[in-house]
This record gives sequence, C-alpha cells and structure tokens, in this order.
Amino acid sequence: MKLIDGKLWILDQTKLPVTEQWLEATSPEVMSELIHRLAVRGAPLIGVAAALSLGLYAVTAPSPLAIAEKAHLLARARPTAVNLKYCVDRCLEAFEKNGMDPQAILTEALHIFDEDVRLCEAIAKNGLPFISDGDGVLTHCNAGGLATAGIGTAVGIIISAWKFGKKFHVYVDETRPLLQGARLTTWELKKNGIPHTLICDSMAAALMNKGSVQKIFTGADRIARNGDSANKIGTYSLAVNAHYHRIPFYIAAPRSTYDPKCATGAKIPIEERAESEVAASSGDSLIPSWNPAFDVTPAALISKIIFDDGVFDPAVTKDLGPRSELS
Amino acid sequence: MKLIDGKLWILDQTKLPVTEQWLEATSPEVMSELIHRLAVRGAPLIGVAAALSLGLYAVTAPSPLAIAEKAHLLARARPTAVNLKYCVDRCLEAFEKNGMDPQAILTEALHIFDEDVRLCEAIAKNGLPFISDGDGVLTHCNAGGLATAGIGTAVGIIISAWKFGKKFHVYVDETRPLLQGARLTTWELKKNGIPHTLICDSMAAALMNKGSVQKIFTGADRIARNGDSANKIGTYSLAVNAHYHRIPFYIAAPRSTYDPKCATGAKIPIEERAESEVAASSGDSLIPSWNPAFDVTPAALISKIIFDDGVFDPAVTKDLGPRSELS
Repeated sequence: MKLIDGKLWILDQTKLPVTEQWLEATSPEVMSELIHRLAVRGAPLIGVAAALSLGLYAVTAPSPLAIAEKAHLLARARPTAVNLKYCVDRCLEAFEKNGMDPQAILTEALHIFDEDVRLCEAIAKNGLPFISDGDGVLTHCNAGGLATAGIGTAVGIIISAWKFGKKFHVYVDETRPLLQGARLTTWELKKNGIPHTLICDSMAAALMNKGSVQKIFTGADRIARNGDSANKIGTYSLAVNAHYHRIPFYIAAPRSTYDPKCATGAKIPIEERAESEVAASSGDSLIPSWNPAFDVTPAALISKIIFDDGVFDPAVTKDLGPRSELS
Repeated sequence: MKLIDGKLWILDQTKLPVTEQWLEATSPEVMSELIHRLAVRGAPLIGVAAALSLGLYAVTAPSPLAIAEKAHLLARARPTAVNLKYCVDRCLEAFEKNGMDPQAILTEALHIFDEDVRLCEAIAKNGLPFISDGDGVLTHCNAGGLATAGIGTAVGIIISAWKFGKKFHVYVDETRPLLQGARLTTWELKKNGIPHTLICDSMAAALMNKGSVQKIFTGADRIARNGDSANKIGTYSLAVNAHYHRIPFYIAAPRSTYDPKCATGAKIPIEERAESEVAASSGDSLIPSWNPAFDVTPAALISKIIFDDGVFDPAVTKDLGPRSELS
C-alpha cells in the first residue's frame, strides 16, 4: 500500500505474481469493492486499508453523517475478519473523542498503519523460538507482507527466523480456490531467498506422514474468546491432520484479531463467496459448488496462539484475556 | 473406450468436459503415452486399455519377443496401479498357456474388458447397503465410468444406488492438481441426474464438521495385503478427517486392485509426476513443487473395502485372502 500526495494506492493481489499492478483506492467506495474482490486482502491489511481510506475521505467529507455512512460501507466489505470493523471503529472513536474533528480519523488511521508494522515485528519476535534449524515448516494461504502493513504474521515469523540465521524449509499450501499460497506466499519467500516447495492443499497430510513437517504456522481472521480461530478455508483440515500426526499447529495474529464479543467459533460469521470461484475448475461454471472463504479451527487443535503481546495455549486457556492496549 | 474395425479409440480425459475428443490408441507406444499423460486413466481402465492394445498388437506382431517388449512398455506406463501389470501379465500367461498363440492375448484382453463391466456391477451390488436415504456422500477423484470399462467403482456404487431409488446428495472433491473430480465426476453425476456439489479438496473437513457428510467412498489403485490402500493424492487427508469426525470411509475396487505381493502400503510405489502440474497454479512454472500422484491410506482408517467378491473390514482383517478367481 502506498500513500502519495493524499492518494492511496494498492497492489492488486489478484494479479500477482504475473503482474504488479497498482490501483488507486482512495475513495471508500472503490476501497470497499477492492476489499470485497480480494485485490487487497489479509485480515490486518484490510483493516489498515479501510482506516486510511476513511481518513482520507473524512478530511474532505461534507458531514459527520457522510463519514459514518462510508465507515459502515467499509466495515461490511467482508464479514469474517474482525480487524476490518475493529480499525474502522477505532477511527470513529477517535473522531468522537476529538470533538468530531475529521483530521482525528486520518491521524488514527496513520497510527493504525504504523502500529501494524510494529505488531508484526512483535509477533515475529514472539514466534522466533518456535522455529528450529532443520524444521520443515508448513503454511497455508498468505499471512505475509502482502496481508499486513508490516512483514506479516505467520510468514513474518518465517522471514524473521530466516533473517535471524535459522535454516529450515518452507512448504506452501497452494490454497484453493484463489491460490493465495501459490501466487503470493511463494512470491514473498522467493523475494527473501527462503527455500520452499509448493504443494496442493490435499498433499499436506501425506507430507506430514512422510515426516517432512515439524511445525505449521497460519494467520487468523478472527479469534473467539475461547481461542477458536477462523482462518482461510483449509486451515481446519490442516489442524485435524496436525493433531493426528502430533505436529504443533501455531496461529500468529495481532491482538486486534481477537474478538472478545465472540464467545466461541460458532459465533464467527463465515463469508460464503461466489460459487463460480470453485466451479471454474470444472470447465462448467454452472456446476453447483460450495465456497466458504474461511473455516474455524477449534481451540483444542491449536498448540499456541502467537500474539504481539504474548503467546497463549488456547487448549488450556479458557479466556485469552482483554485485548491489550495497542498503543 | 471403443473398438472399431480393429482400431482402439479412447476418449481424451484431459480434455473433458469441455471437449469430447476421441484419440486412436491402437499401438502400444501410443497407448503407453496416453496412459502416462492421463488421457486414459483410472486403475481398472488402464489395465483394460493396456490389455486390448497388447492384444491388437499381438495378432500382427513379428515375434513373441516383440510382444514381450510391448507388454513391458505398457506395464510400466504408470507405477502405482497394480491393475496395469496384472492385466498385462494375464495376457502373457494366456499367450504361454496357448502355445504362444497371439490370438490368445486378444481373446484374454476382450475377456478382461467384459469382466471389468461385470466386476463393476458386483461392486455396486456389494456397496448398495452402505448408502442410505438422506446421506451426504463425499467422493474424491473419479472412480466412475470413465475410470473403468463398466459403471465405475466408488461412483458405480453411487450411480447404482441412485438408480435403485435411494435419495442422497453427492459432494465432489475437485481433486487437485488435475481436477478429475471437478471435470470428470461432476460430468458423470450430471449425466445421471444425481444432485451434487463441487468443493475444493481443502473444504472437505469443514463440510464434515458441518454434519453434511455421512459416508465417504473412493476407489483405489493398489491395495496391500494388510489393507493399506493407495489412491489419488488427497485420499489420505480425507481418511484422517473421516476418522476425526467418525464418518465411515469406504474403498471400492475390483479384487484385481489387491496386490498380495505388497505386504503393506509402505511397499506400494508412488508415482511422482512433473512439478509443473502443481507449479502452474503459482503463475511461475519454476516454483519448486512436490507432485505425488497418490498417497496411501492405512488399513486402520478404512471402514470397509468393497470388492466385487466381498466386503472386508481391513482394520480387523490382517490378510484379505487370496485373489478370487476373476472369471
């Protein structure tokens, strides 16, 4: 994401890695559409992007009501990642606290952006002890620099561990149907010179059985009070297989992904996307298909949740505690 | 597969469902190549196809040595499915038993073809009791009419149960990387008017957790003496998830898939195919990838193996017994 002369630009992630195309996404209408169609994606990043778009709109908005309307539009662009609503809400709170000064929204949005960079670094630091020399590390979807304002969450840990000097191999789930692992995570790992192997999602179990996987790291889009975690579809299947093969399964996320208002994973709204995204593979776009964008991994299958402000064992921690001050 | 005026034609399964293209595949060289590149596929069908190709070659062959050479070429076109070698070996045995009469090979091949049709029917009959009204039935890859000379194995059971009048819904794993489920199984189910929903392989676990799956049926490419079964990559992940969700997992196959010479699944050779088949999804064909065509599901995770000549519980049956007389 780039902010140049008051205009916001995003790298179209649906086109990567073949084309690096930047799209102007300053207005909340455009940003909302780009978030919906995954041109900009990743739970942390869509929160930051929505906040910045709202901030830039706010300083030219005709009225507080117009700002509230755009805030609502942005917050509902996608339902599962709680970061989106969390970041928009923070902007609106700053607005109210500062006597309805629109500038306060932009200031808060810029603060959220900077904060996300620091949160990624804190997550990477907390995750570092969980990667060892010689490990095979499996990850799903893209929880990297493309999904955040910083170095990423799960992939941030991987990149930091590599830069720290640890030697290991990364296996990347391609992540059907939209192939974020194949297109985005391999692209980031290649840029960082980290050895990796792409696999189809269905191969992960056989790879575990072969003894090639020692650790699994994914991001999260929303974590319920009890630790149940929503993440990209396919994460739950990985977690079940990790459990069967006794492989530690880690989730890495900023604390803003934690939603104390959701008691359990059953309360997390799961976005269902167009059937055509799945049906396309059949060569017949009319084949009836099911296309949930996320699934929920129960706390019992998660070894640790690696937040910026600490590491939790959700299987034994009934309540992960209040969201820390993210300042 | 069609046999017209001494020429063998196969429906190119890499082109389905978009194009129904028939290719002439009479010569063992051509057939071997078509089997290798999956234009003709499915453990039972490649056995039948190889036998017929060998039979047609034999009746014009210059010498028994030339026949043996082509037999060897066909038998090694793909390594995992035991049916291929089994059918070629049967042809060669018939050749020897009949005083090296080449006609005996063609006769045996035609016999194998007819037999496969009957075996499918016997499997379907044995599998019928395992589907109930209201079931959600999940299948992986394509174990249907396109994979056999008859109505199929796993999909044969599904089609027969539907024709019998049972009412249920089928979920189809798309089956990456070559999408046999998305392209072939949905095509067969649609032709038979059976309600179905296509999913990505990684969604199966979430679908099970939702309570939508009551039974899982797949085919097999080789079954070891202890019941460990090789099938299309992704089957093992399904079986682990079925075990976790306490959903019965059935394998359906002709007894010719049973290889008493393989003591356990560890002895089954697993074909590794070109990395590019997986890497293609990344938009960068040079991304290092892993592409095993099959994985092995241990007997302990298989509820029943449904053969043409009986139904076995591999978890409690240490030795499935000798291959029955397949005449």
